[in-house]
Amino acid sequence: MAVSHISLPRSTTRRSALAAVLPEHGADAIVVSDLVNVRYLSGFTGSNGSVLVWSGDDRDRDRIATDGRYTEQVAAQSPGLDAIIARDTLAALLAAAAGRSGSPRVAFEAAAVTVAQFHDLTAADRLGTITLVPVRGLVEHLRESKDDAEVAAVEQACAIADQALEALIERGAVRPGRTEREVARELEWEMYARGASAIAFETIVAAGPNSAIPHHRPTGAVLESGDLVKMDFGAVYDGYHSDMTRTFVLGEPQDWQREIHGVVQTAQEAGRAALAAGARAREVDAAAREIIDGAGYGEYYVHGLGHGVGLQIHEAPPIGSAATGTLLDGATVTVEPGIYLPGRGGVRIEDTLVVTGSGARSLTHAPRALRIL
Amino acid sequence: MAVSHISLPRSTTRRSALAAVLPEHGADAIVVSDLVNVRYLSGFTGSNGSVLVWSGDDRDRDRIATDGRYTEQVAAQSPGLDAIIARDTLAALLAAAAGRSGSPRVAFEAAAVTVAQFHDLTAADRLGTITLVPVRGLVEHLRESKDDAEVAAVEQACAIADQALEALIERGAVRPGRTEREVARELEWEMYARGASAIAFETIVAAGPNSAIPHHRPTGAVLESGDLVKMDFGAVYDGYHSDMTRTFVLGEPQDWQREIHGVVQTAQEAGRAALAAGARAREVDAAAREIIDGAGYGEYYVHGLGHGVGLQIHEAPPIGSAATGTLLDGATVTVEPGIYLPGRGGVRIEDTLVVTGSGARSLTHAPRALRIL
Repeated sequence: MAVSHISLPRSTTRRSALAAVLPEHGADAIVVSDLVNVRYLSGFTGSNGSVLVWSGDDRDRDRIATDGRYTEQVAAQSPGLDAIIARDTLAALLAAAAGRSGSPRVAFEAAAVTVAQFHDLTAADRLGTITLVPVRGLVEHLRESKDDAEVAAVEQACAIADQALEALIERGAVRPGRTEREVARELEWEMYARGASAIAFETIVAAGPNSAIPHHRPTGAVLESGDLVKMDFGAVYDGYHSDMTRTFVLGEPQDWQREIHGVVQTAQEAGRAALAAGARAREVDAAAREIIDGAGYGEYYVHGLGHGVGLQIHEAPPIGSAATGTLLDGATVTVEPGIYLPGRGGVRIEDTLVVTGSGARSLTHAPRALRIL
Repeated sequence: MAVSHISLPRSTTRRSALAAVLPEHGADAIVVSDLVNVRYLSGFTGSNGSVLVWSGDDRDRDRIATDGRYTEQVAAQSPGLDAIIARDTLAALLAAAAGRSGSPRVAFEAAAVTVAQFHDLTAADRLGTITLVPVRGLVEHLRESKDDAEVAAVEQACAIADQALEALIERGAVRPGRTEREVARELEWEMYARGASAIAFETIVAAGPNSAIPHHRPTGAVLESGDLVKMDFGAVYDGYHSDMTRTFVLGEPQDWQREIHGVVQTAQEAGRAALAAGARAREVDAAAREIIDGAGYGEYYVHGLGHGVGLQIHEAPPIGSAATGTLLDGATVTVEPGIYLPGRGGVRIEDTLVVTGSGARSLTHAPRALRIL
């Protein structure tokens, strides 16, 4: 699709919400150059673009900038925003801002602007009377709480992944003799066939000892009887991502395989149960981590419990032992504890859920108990 | 594959080449954090990592840093580099550098470090006696000239794309009644079936008026008799990308379609003929642009002639009217002029070529004359 499903009213509402927080950061306006944030605020999906948002209620002053490749696309996707066509979009928006008012303080996204860009923008006297104000995470924070249409898009991406996995299993595609790469590719094909516009991230299929590598890339390694097979994958639908992991065993499981799968499953349940609007992310992480620590596998659980998922596969909020935030109503997040025994094998179980006032609702539904394939 | 085909000797040679240019930038060492450059210098393909390279000949002092998810992977992919496991890899490498010598001047990649990262790295007295020196494009410049194994990988990616396109055409998959999205998806499947590890970028299939949008995303739009169909696509093989565009017509072409296709084909030939080691990129661009300008279509050719292609789909050198560089022996580049008539249709013809001392050799081979499907 050339035109995003994000409609004009939604992107206007989002820019108003951003405008409302600018004064507390001492800014009269903001230039947004992170491309995902640009999409969120404008609907524009091109590979070069920035958005200028002014504080206050007058959205007619807002601007989008992109280069000549996207003249038609930006008109179609961002009909409510006047577009400036220029290759250096940040410089063009700052020039526009400099022309509008006295000595504006213009915020910029410190995590999206490189040292090189900043140097070039501030070189000579290109800025005129503008004062640049570094800010972090403003749009990312707005993006944490999804509206109904966003949740619906994540849920559809999750449904595509669920259905693709079941189709693969039903026809016996996950079996000894197949390679990791073959299984990964077929899983991706099944997602495309069900309407995925893209794969959410490089699909992980990790068999036997490879399953002990948390982020293994599929190889020509052949699945063997007795292997744990860890599959971590997702679909993109209308720009929104899903993220799910399941770990299977090929044939009768050994005791150690049953044990670590059971511990991870219990930990994952505890993590899911701890989710609720207002819950502290660190405590959600702890709820799952305590189970794994208590079972004596703490040293083999080498990552955080989860992360936000939406227009990006990894976005705010992080859910880990060092996380400082609380969960918002409408946040879509993953819960994905794991145990990885080097040289032997590993287990991870992961769902994507939407946080609600009273708890959370899982958007991925594949069975979580150990399945023997 | 978990282990890249980039072998230890190659990455060591590359680090030596980087070390050799550090003195001219006033640096005793460099921390490289652009992930593609990290891969080039180390073989490591994880999503978080940085490399420290010291000037001089002692490669044993070089380090790589990544986080705990990649402990096994970095050992397998970068056996010749001692690894530091830390989440903030730049901070960890700077700490390592501070511990090694007196008051080192350490270069960093200004285009890969954000203002936020820089602020955090230089906060308090984390840097100790280190002086940070911003540099740009050092590794990117090394990457411009490909070695034989790199050219072979690009060539294989090109062969996959060529064969996939022919298979699609031979079985009549590009015909009236199909949607852009169906054709794009099938082309991608054909590339995967021939060994692509990934799709090089979002495949463009643009039919009828959509072909006038240079970077159109495939939609549910149905291909119709009489349409121009522009297809821009590529494969990834062993990390290296291919990039090719062909424009077809469904049924007997109209005069204006023949005309713009003929102009673009002539311009593309002129651009290819102008390639040679030592040629100025701007003049290569001009060779093709003059043809289109001379035919009166200059205003409908809205982008540069081409770009380098390798570990990234877009990399140095740029080939455009504002380019300042010259082409290196072994550079792999695209040549891709186009004419886009808004509301009517557009044509682009693109090859990936390797620059040689005497000219260039095309790595993509699909016929360039207008094909009637």
